[in-house]
Amino acid sequence: MRGRLRDLGIEIGDLPTGTHNSITDVAGVRVGHATLIHDEPTVARTGVTMIVPRDGGIWTDFAHAGWFNFSGNGEMTGLPWIEESGLLGSPIGLTSTHQVGLVRDFLVKAAVETGHTDAFHLPVVAETWDGWLSDADSFPLTEVEARMAYTSAAAGPVAEGCVGGGTGMICHELKGGIGTSSRMVESRSGVFTVGVLVQANYGRRRDLRVDGFPLGRHLGFDVVPSAWDEPPNGGSIIVVAATDAPLLPIQCSRMARRITVGLARVGGYGHDSSGDIFLAFSTGNHLPVSKEPWTVDVLPHREMDDLFHAVADATEESILNALVAAETMSGQRGRTAHALPLDRMEELVALDPRQ
Amino acid sequence: MRGRLRDLGIEIGDLPTGTHNSITDVAGVRVGHATLIHDEPTVARTGVTMIVPRDGGIWTDFAHAGWFNFSGNGEMTGLPWIEESGLLGSPIGLTSTHQVGLVRDFLVKAAVETGHTDAFHLPVVAETWDGWLSDADSFPLTEVEARMAYTSAAAGPVAEGCVGGGTGMICHELKGGIGTSSRMVESRSGVFTVGVLVQANYGRRRDLRVDGFPLGRHLGFDVVPSAWDEPPNGGSIIVVAATDAPLLPIQCSRMARRITVGLARVGGYGHDSSGDIFLAFSTGNHLPVSKEPWTVDVLPHREMDDLFHAVADATEESILNALVAAETMSGQRGRTAHALPLDRMEELVALDPRQ
Amino acid sequence: MRGRLRDLGIEIGDLPTGTHNSITDVAGVRVGHATLIHDEPTVARTGVTMIVPRDGGIWTDFAHAGWFNFSGNGEMTGLPWIEESGLLGSPIGLTSTHQVGLVRDFLVKAAVETGHTDAFHLPVVAETWDGWLSDADSFPLTEVEARMAYTSAAAGPVAEGCVGGGTGMICHELKGGIGTSSRMVESRSGVFTVGVLVQANYGRRRDLRVDGFPLGRHLGFDVVPSAWDEPPNGGSIIVVAATDAPLLPIQCSRMARRITVGLARVGGYGHDSSGDIFLAFSTGNHLPVSKEPWTVDVLPHREMDDLFHAVADATEESILNALVAAETMSGQRGRTAHALPLDRMEELVALDPRQ
Amino acid sequence: MRGRLRDLGIEIGDLPTGTHNSITDVAGVRVGHATLIHDEPTVARTGVTMIVPRDGGIWTDFAHAGWFNFSGNGEMTGLPWIEESGLLGSPIGLTSTHQVGLVRDFLVKAAVETGHTDAFHLPVVAETWDGWLSDADSFPLTEVEARMAYTSAAAGPVAEGCVGGGTGMICHELKGGIGTSSRMVESRSGVFTVGVLVQANYGRRRDLRVDGFPLGRHLGFDVVPSAWDEPPNGGSIIVVAATDAPLLPIQCSRMARRITVGLARVGGYGHDSSGDIFLAFSTGNHLPVSKEPWTVDVLPHREMDDLFHAVADATEESILNALVAAETMSGQRGRTAHALPLDRMEELVALDPRQ
Repeated sequence: MRGRLRDLGIEIGDLPTGTHNSITDVAGVRVGHATLIHDEPTVARTGVTMIVPRDGGIWTDFAHAGWFNFSGNGEMTGLPWIEESGLLGSPIGLTSTHQVGLVRDFLVKAAVETGHTDAFHLPVVAETWDGWLSDADSFPLTEVEARMAYTSAAAGPVAEGCVGGGTGMICHELKGGIGTSSRMVESRSGVFTVGVLVQANYGRRRDLRVDGFPLGRHLGFDVVPSAWDEPPNGGSIIVVAATDAPLLPIQCSRMARRITVGLARVGGYGHDSSGDIFLAFSTGNHLPVSKEPWTVDVLPHREMDDLFHAVADATEESILNALVAAETMSGQRGRTAHALPLDRMEELVALDPRQ
Repeated sequence: MRGRLRDLGIEIGDLPTGTHNSITDVAGVRVGHATLIHDEPTVARTGVTMIVPRDGGIWTDFAHAGWFNFSGNGEMTGLPWIEESGLLGSPIGLTSTHQVGLVRDFLVKAAVETGHTDAFHLPVVAETWDGWLSDADSFPLTEVEARMAYTSAAAGPVAEGCVGGGTGMICHELKGGIGTSSRMVESRSGVFTVGVLVQANYGRRRDLRVDGFPLGRHLGFDVVPSAWDEPPNGGSIIVVAATDAPLLPIQCSRMARRITVGLARVGGYGHDSSGDIFLAFSTGNHLPVSKEPWTVDVLPHREMDDLFHAVADATEESILNALVAAETMSGQRGRTAHALPLDRMEELVALDPRQ
Repeated sequence: MRGRLRDLGIEIGDLPTGTHNSITDVAGVRVGHATLIHDEPTVARTGVTMIVPRDGGIWTDFAHAGWFNFSGNGEMTGLPWIEESGLLGSPIGLTSTHQVGLVRDFLVKAAVETGHTDAFHLPVVAETWDGWLSDADSFPLTEVEARMAYTSAAAGPVAEGCVGGGTGMICHELKGGIGTSSRMVESRSGVFTVGVLVQANYGRRRDLRVDGFPLGRHLGFDVVPSAWDEPPNGGSIIVVAATDAPLLPIQCSRMARRITVGLARVGGYGHDSSGDIFLAFSTGNHLPVSKEPWTVDVLPHREMDDLFHAVADATEESILNALVAAETMSGQRGRTAHALPLDRMEELVALDPRQ
Repeated sequence: MRGRLRDLGIEIGDLPTGTHNSITDVAGVRVGHATLIHDEPTVARTGVTMIVPRDGGIWTDFAHAGWFNFSGNGEMTGLPWIEESGLLGSPIGLTSTHQVGLVRDFLVKAAVETGHTDAFHLPVVAETWDGWLSDADSFPLTEVEARMAYTSAAAGPVAEGCVGGGTGMICHELKGGIGTSSRMVESRSGVFTVGVLVQANYGRRRDLRVDGFPLGRHLGFDVVPSAWDEPPNGGSIIVVAATDAPLLPIQCSRMARRITVGLARVGGYGHDSSGDIFLAFSTGNHLPVSKEPWTVDVLPHREMDDLFHAVADATEESILNALVAAETMSGQRGRTAHALPLDRMEELVALDPRQ
């Protein structure tokens, strides 16, 4: 166990975290992982992660949602309906590029199996590409992993690094994967939680920064070898933000756009090959399937600045948590993605006089 | 006085109209026109129309709003803030292309003059091009007309045809201008009004339809001369829809998009030279300038179909009302835009067996 | 065989059609269908349709593309990359709502199988809901149908009505399905073809119009029973437009938006339950996978008006072709969707004095 | 003269700058400022900046363009046409919030005066709010300043800080204003220049970073007083990026979106009151007003990464150049906005071990 960023004495921003410093700090949000690692018959370093809002009641009690396509070389299903209605009505799956469809159709099946046949379903499933370490072209995932991620989703601490959809991911040319973080914000409307979860698989080594410190410049390929010996053809980051602040869909979109700030500060540029797609949802109002009028609370736009800080800071820390947690992994064709060297990182950041 | 479409026995769609069959049927919505017609020192056939929501209280009690850019060869100011926040915080001006800025800055001044200096202002002003009949290049409008349109805004019946911003407009190669219409819809949440106002300045003669009847095919240039003897370089339609149904911004955007349906049925294609820009706003919730949380009512998405019919039908009828009301007008350089021949229209539509 | 709209003497608009009055009139565009109809073990009335651009070379020679979300209660995968880059790099699948993922992942596999492993793939697959006639909840489609639709794709005439992805569809409360049409346009840059294919599954009976004639008002449920005895929970239309005119991505988006015009004229309103999602692509330039600079031809925006008419008219005719071709079909639970009564339609339209 | 960031030994990113490290390094791009400072009859600290592409030939030889609305509490006119066509056809004005319309209409007049009456005009003018130092409510600007900024536009070095539209601006609670920077990128298609110009008026002190170093944390209000003693009601940044790389409109939009990266790294969050609106244009192709087909060069998407780095880095440096150049300014009501203390900044950044 390599721990988390805060174990190294580094904190991002001024706002306090929630209990677990995790997206599950938002009440009702659960996360489950299914990790698939085998070397036969093909090499698999892959998996599925599920974010289940509202303790699973999301099928019939929607959440307001919005999204942002910072760099669209990726897939997130379910977008036309979110764009049209601002309603999220399914768990959110994260997985490997080639098998988004499998996980998407499984979520339809999960709705059917649990008796939610009264509406048709447009689930949200996103991906990043794990085909460097994993033999993605062998399509190793089956419905088993999708189901396991879904049924195992739980509140509380969330496993990070090489788990679930993040299993085979590479970030800043180091081993990447799943990371999460949260922040608490106070407003006249109450205290709210913002939680973020990332599947991080993007970026160049030399661009990596830790709270502004240009760590990547000090981690040359002589220090830690690059994950690849030839140019890869993918790289992306999916970010999901949840909050219990009562937001309208247009406000969720505002939050989703500010996720870019956190990504930029770690060293993301939205490269051409990168699918940097962000989703934000709010559980702060109940929106049951009904023709009866809804009454919803709304946090005024003027009170949103702290949420913007929260989502940017939690995104930054989530990515760094993914890097800190992920361990060196070898995969197909003798390839190895090396972990961020924590000792070297501590040593370097200690030089920084700014704290 | 040439009357309105319904005076000819033609009704669009199944839904009933409001009292005045006008955008002012939405409680609190006022409309004012300033019409500028002179031949010296330059030829002016132009003006300003103002739509003032909430009896003028819009500066400090916002309305949810959304927009749609069906064909963007035009201008509507204030869009970034509507896109970001879904809030309309000013009256809406309609005028001539060259002088959008004048009317836009006047609305800032109007806010300042009425003491609303506590926020900065991003007014919504849109345009269509009247430079065929009017010497637009002489910039004939002044702040006087903007102010007059604003201060004269009133509830009740709305003048149509060659008035206000619609003064010099040409539609389907006939005299166009301002038109309006409204519809009432029932839902489990109550009875709501949808009102539409258009500034119509687009389209080819042969594409004109009246409730599906291809009137344009029967109104060749031998029957009624075209408005122009050489190809014009503009043409657009601005459509503003108001409702008292309690809608979120994303729902206003949905309504704005369905305005396209009404335009398409009359014969709009969104030509390259056409700025077909639509705005929809809802007065159904009060959104005071404040950091206190708002509580808003929401009509569920599932109840919106009648609103979609209402806005499409009222758009169709508004355009036809503009054509029916507008009288033949001569302008600069001996040019004349001919009115829709009402007798011929009645005769032709009477042949239609469908009613 | 019930024929096509033009067999009834009805033509939409002024522009001539291509050879087959089909999307395959655009050189290099192929269409394939796989139709799955069985009553055991579950009732299936479903299938897959594939539109294969560039004679299959689309994996390595992209097409410019754009899309429009008129009413987003539906799914189309692959949108973030089209939004980001304007590049289409896969065949386009059309199928049933519940199994979009299956067809999407199959297209990744098809890329891998044909050796295109040098890029990762974000295929475009869209859906409409066939769960009224078909037991969609039994997930009857397998990779077999996806593959069959793909490998059988051919140039020339295209089967319409109850075939492929359109098998179980219902349109204007009559039997719907697949329809196609094309138009030729002349410009200073040459003669170009615009082809459209629809999977039509939307709308209310009473709103149906044929070239403006309000046919739906004359086809009450006493004349032809409604397809359903209780309110259905779906309904959508997917429209794909192809052209060999050399368009930039932003121009494809312009075309996609004008598809709305054709839909509106037949009687589409973009109802809340309707996923009306449109894609337009241009094969007019070759865009090979490469880092070498591209040189592309561009039809100036000012020359696009005829393309707008073409795509609107071809959309209108495609929908009507779907209705004309589709035959009465019975499905699960004793349900029947009745075909448009062609004799009654001819009789009624003959009354119309306008032609 | 306080100089520029590089005079302090600080460089942003790895790419070389152009000759003047200015947006005018892009061939044909000119910049002009008109600065209005007076204390009678009202206090004015305002002005107009013009960016004139293509040596002024932009009226008849368009540039591809795209935009991004990171935080839309601001105004940029001309957006619907850029969204529709991807064509920029006017100089770009930057000024004070209240008088955007004045500058916008002036640009129409400038087109008319120079004989470009054959098309109607939809100029691009953006704003940030200078009403803290300047008595904006007195509307001090006239057409004189707009014209002066336009006619004085020149190639070569660009004045920064308290000039033109940036005169009264405040950034990170220090004196802000105009800043510019440029980068050179090499590709298989040739060497290209990316230039950026900002009008910077946003942000909190404590969030300010210089190349990642958290300078703002060391510049408390005891060190340098805040610009305001009560909460202000505005704050925004407009960023314009130009390049001679041959880009399509959709690629300009990609670049515009990456401007966010540079802003985020300096400390921008897109606060609620901030209008952070970005425009990017490419002069790399000639697009004359014509119906003749265009042939355009296109840099493949895969070659865009260096452009993304260039625009992000040049944005970061442009903002810092604005802060470095801007001198302490007093304005209405005894208010003072203090300049960034360069000596303190050098001292602090020297402590940073990372360089």
